[in-house]
Amino acid sequence: MRTYLECVPCFVRQALDASRMVTDDPAVHERVLRETLRLAAEMPFDRSPPWMGQRIHKLLRDATGNPDPYREVKLHSNALALELYPTLKQRVRTSTDPFAAAVRMAIAGNVIDFGCRSRLADDEVHQAIEDAMAPHAPGFDNGAVDDLRRALEHASDILYLADNAGEIVFDRLLIEEMPMDRITLVVRGGPVINDATREDAETAGIISLVKVVDNGSDVPGTILECCSPAFRARFEQCDLVIAKGQGNYETLGGEDQNIFFLFKAKCPVIARDVGSEVGQMVVCRNRSQNEAGSRAPPIHRETADRQR
Amino acid sequence: MRTYLECVPCFVRQALDASRMVTDDPAVHERVLRETLRLAAEMPFDRSPPWMGQRIHKLLRDATGNPDPYREVKLHSNALALELYPTLKQRVRTSTDPFAAAVRMAIAGNVIDFGCRSRLADDEVHQAIEDAMAPHAPGFDNGAVDDLRRALEHASDILYLADNAGEIVFDRLLIEEMPMDRITLVVRGGPVINDATREDAETAGIISLVKVVDNGSDVPGTILECCSPAFRARFEQCDLVIAKGQGNYETLGGEDQNIFFLFKAKCPVIARDVGSEVGQMVVCRNRSQNEAGSRAPPIHRETADRQR
Repeated sequence: MRTYLECVPCFVRQALDASRMVTDDPAVHERVLRETLRLAAEMPFDRSPPWMGQRIHKLLRDATGNPDPYREVKLHSNALALELYPTLKQRVRTSTDPFAAAVRMAIAGNVIDFGCRSRLADDEVHQAIEDAMAPHAPGFDNGAVDDLRRALEHASDILYLADNAGEIVFDRLLIEEMPMDRITLVVRGGPVINDATREDAETAGIISLVKVVDNGSDVPGTILECCSPAFRARFEQCDLVIAKGQGNYETLGGEDQNIFFLFKAKCPVIARDVGSEVGQMVVCRNRSQNEAGSRAPPIHRETADRQR
Repeated sequence: MRTYLECVPCFVRQALDASRMVTDDPAVHERVLRETLRLAAEMPFDRSPPWMGQRIHKLLRDATGNPDPYREVKLHSNALALELYPTLKQRVRTSTDPFAAAVRMAIAGNVIDFGCRSRLADDEVHQAIEDAMAPHAPGFDNGAVDDLRRALEHASDILYLADNAGEIVFDRLLIEEMPMDRITLVVRGGPVINDATREDAETAGIISLVKVVDNGSDVPGTILECCSPAFRARFEQCDLVIAKGQGNYETLGGEDQNIFFLFKAKCPVIARDVGSEVGQMVVCRNRSQNEAGSRAPPIHRETADRQR
């Protein structure tokens, strides 16, 4: 997804919010803000928003001298999710459709996203779970869940692209309902915002369940040209990708691979792009796959409209 | 008032909103956005927000080649307000306290502000009037209105600094309740946003009631060093200033003059600075006057706190 002009004020706000979240030093706040303005002024808008997110959060790490400013946030999110895990596992297992319940749980966990916001109360996580498990969650596409179920049956090499710390515990619930011997979990190659790295996969207890690799990049999404050659080869060779979170949707929506995106729409630009509403759970495929006959809604609707 | 860091994302958003409001040309939107980012990156934050507003709106005029992009908006606001005028005049005259009612009306008119936003429905103007006339309008300082009443009795040379088109018709209601022979109405020296210029004073029918001068500047506020020498001399010589709108508050709050500010608090930064809430009507004096014993709340509260 390209960067829309209305993403730009949001970058500036997020840079300020993030700098205030990770340090009390007003000189750092001002420096990060001014550098973000300079970067945004020259940004190529055909790049996706995570391209800018990577740069802003590198600025933040450089300005604070802290290589992982969200470490405490990530530890807290993991601890909160692990505390919830036994109860959530029980809810999934006793559900009439454990796979669908686990998909909903995995998307509920996507509320733990410090890319869009700088504060998240534990209660909001609890609320996201209840909203996700409501029988008639608005906009939720049960047909797309069935498409994913069928795709999993036929796939032999599955990449599961994780998004955030804390959320990765919710991903474990879904991974445990999938053919684990055919799954490789992918985490970021280095700290950026609260995105999950190998350490979080270990904390979530996933490392003993499936293979875990990192993508060699600190983009809060998956920009293939920024990833390691090893990951790019894995991405090309696999026959199914499950990509969590807005950042992965923004960066991989245009790729010619068999991808299912699972996320909560948290910003109006992405909600419009995917044909959803802010706050809704999204299960959708990338356009090339959708054109092959999926029931999931098309993505990049605006682009499609323009081409007609 | 200095520019707070949280003003900066708002500048960027406003620049984009404003460019979209005045033209459909996406190249202009992008150019104004990028130039605003460059300007904001280098802005001295000890300057007030209208310093930046002037530059953004000059960019907009240059990029569109339109010397007055808000002309249609201003004409509409004036027409709307003039249509309401006879009814509002009747409400003021039949009020138990016409002066206080006219102060409320003048502040209600301050909702017609395209500096903070790019859309305003006529219904919002009607609603602002009803809110302003409610007996217990939240946060409204009746004591400050009495201070203003007394100040008017003793002043021999009064400047009334207008803010916006449309709003200036509401100002007429207040001016008509004041000693008109001692009042000079001040408008902006050139078009900027929807701020009132001489043409709007004519349209509002004020030009036949009081003297009207312009301040020689296209700042959406009153930065004295940007104003004409003639206006600066008038400002120094007068013994009372009534300043409408956030822009005048932001630029004149630190001046050592006898100033009453009348506005609707429309942004959280200004509301916090003045000790009010967003949406409330504010009547307050500048700090130097307040320290002399006014009942009005102090302004620049944060600065005052820091100095204790």
